[in-house]
Amino acid sequence: MLRDGGTEEVRRSFAQAADPRARLILDSLTRHLHAFVKEVRPSREEWAAAIDFLTRTGQRCDDTRQEFILLSDVLGVSMLVEELNAGDAGTESTVVGPFHVGDSPVRELGASIDLLGVGEPCVVTGRVVDLDGTPLRGATVDIWQWSADGYYDVQQPDRQPQGNGRGLFTADAEGRFWFRTVVPSHYPIPTDGPAGELLRAAGRHPYRPAHIHVIAAADGHDPVTTHAFVADSPYLDSDAVFAVRESLIRPFDVIDEAERAAAFGVTHPFRLLQLELVLG
Amino acid sequence: MLRDGGTEEVRRSFAQAADPRARLILDSLTRHLHAFVKEVRPSREEWAAAIDFLTRTGQRCDDTRQEFILLSDVLGVSMLVEELNAGDAGTESTVVGPFHVGDSPVRELGASIDLLGVGEPCVVTGRVVDLDGTPLRGATVDIWQWSADGYYDVQQPDRQPQGNGRGLFTADAEGRFWFRTVVPSHYPIPTDGPAGELLRAAGRHPYRPAHIHVIAAADGHDPVTTHAFVADSPYLDSDAVFAVRESLIRPFDVIDEAERAAAFGVTHPFRLLQLELVLG
Repeated sequence: MLRDGGTEEVRRSFAQAADPRARLILDSLTRHLHAFVKEVRPSREEWAAAIDFLTRTGQRCDDTRQEFILLSDVLGVSMLVEELNAGDAGTESTVVGPFHVGDSPVRELGASIDLLGVGEPCVVTGRVVDLDGTPLRGATVDIWQWSADGYYDVQQPDRQPQGNGRGLFTADAEGRFWFRTVVPSHYPIPTDGPAGELLRAAGRHPYRPAHIHVIAAADGHDPVTTHAFVADSPYLDSDAVFAVRESLIRPFDVIDEAERAAAFGVTHPFRLLQLELVLG
Repeated sequence: MLRDGGTEEVRRSFAQAADPRARLILDSLTRHLHAFVKEVRPSREEWAAAIDFLTRTGQRCDDTRQEFILLSDVLGVSMLVEELNAGDAGTESTVVGPFHVGDSPVRELGASIDLLGVGEPCVVTGRVVDLDGTPLRGATVDIWQWSADGYYDVQQPDRQPQGNGRGLFTADAEGRFWFRTVVPSHYPIPTDGPAGELLRAAGRHPYRPAHIHVIAAADGHDPVTTHAFVADSPYLDSDAVFAVRESLIRPFDVIDEAERAAAFGVTHPFRLLQLELVLG
């Protein structure tokens, strides 16, 4: 048996990679992966179980489901990558998650992204600004959220019209945007695949606190991928994918005023989220 | 941003796993995986490329191809796991590889595993013994190898009969076994999937030196998964899967004697591999 279990031989095999970035990544991968294996000392059966787990994770993916992103999420890797890439200023970013599937439907300001009419009416108004507070005219705000009963449209192709809970809005000349929706609920991530097996093995619950996904972008600025978490949601302190940041927890105020409801075209009482998005 | 990128939060989430082995593995995985990500600092695009790579690796697997084993092989992980599990005595073990698919056909001693008749005739004779040299009566010897032109039967379902190059033999009362075959050639591992992409990115060749796969097993002994490498094969010093061990390189002697050829039922000249397999 080689004294080091072959690690140096594998590292040498990657030393000739033409691209220096590939060389660095493969060398680091070899060191950390071998260190993990040497520490855990898997039996052949455990190695085979790991191969099977990874294989089934890949095979669980299709056009509307990305089980490897889910696995990256529940291992805290997605959030870590997001933090490593986040700017130091502006709205904090968080995970994109596995449900940003394709292009969101383009909608007019004020339109509703809720095509089902089930749930508490909610109005979102906000602005996209730069670090100085200057409004970003023409910024885009890409929104997606699950329905009131905890599923994304792509998870329920038979029960939700495509594009339910999604909308791509363009801010007006003052950087403002607004739209109608329903208050999202907390929900479990899909647990019928390998990521769910892992949660069960760990004794972890699969819930994410209620949130609306946002990607805000404007020419000449770094886009931000973030959430607006609902302040009174359960699971804010134990998000299954580790994505909660204090600054992203927002009040969804209850408004019981007929006039304001009429102005937005919703019934009352309704909930109001005011969302300033700051791009660095 | 959390000071540690969330690593401690993720570790805490695994601290309640009921099974202590699962707890240990998940904690170790979290530490090493996060350390790798923090060292490499992948961009979001690199993270997405990794998700895509792993997804395609899973989706490349089917009944006759196991791309995650291939990936484990080219990263030296399979060989490392094999070494961690190997006994300290007896014949050295090496990787099982991705082509031990289902049960090998049961064959009589002396039978040929070569169903194509192309290639240099080869006779393999040997014994299965314990550490004291005592023959292991009734030991099983599971053999698989590629055809003379470098493919396994399962890779060429249209060109090779199923079971070509495979045989499951039972040793006689003196622990002896023998069979006929053809001398294997060196060959490339499949490069039309993600593992091949990795090799190309690393500037590595995909070849394995010529070898015959063996799993020897006997009641009351640890089975051994090993290879007999052909001593005059190219690539013995740069096996794409890091599986060569000095003790496993064997002469395949050229025998040009009509009588011995007739005794084995082969033409001459033929090659002879003598293989003692020692089980701990």
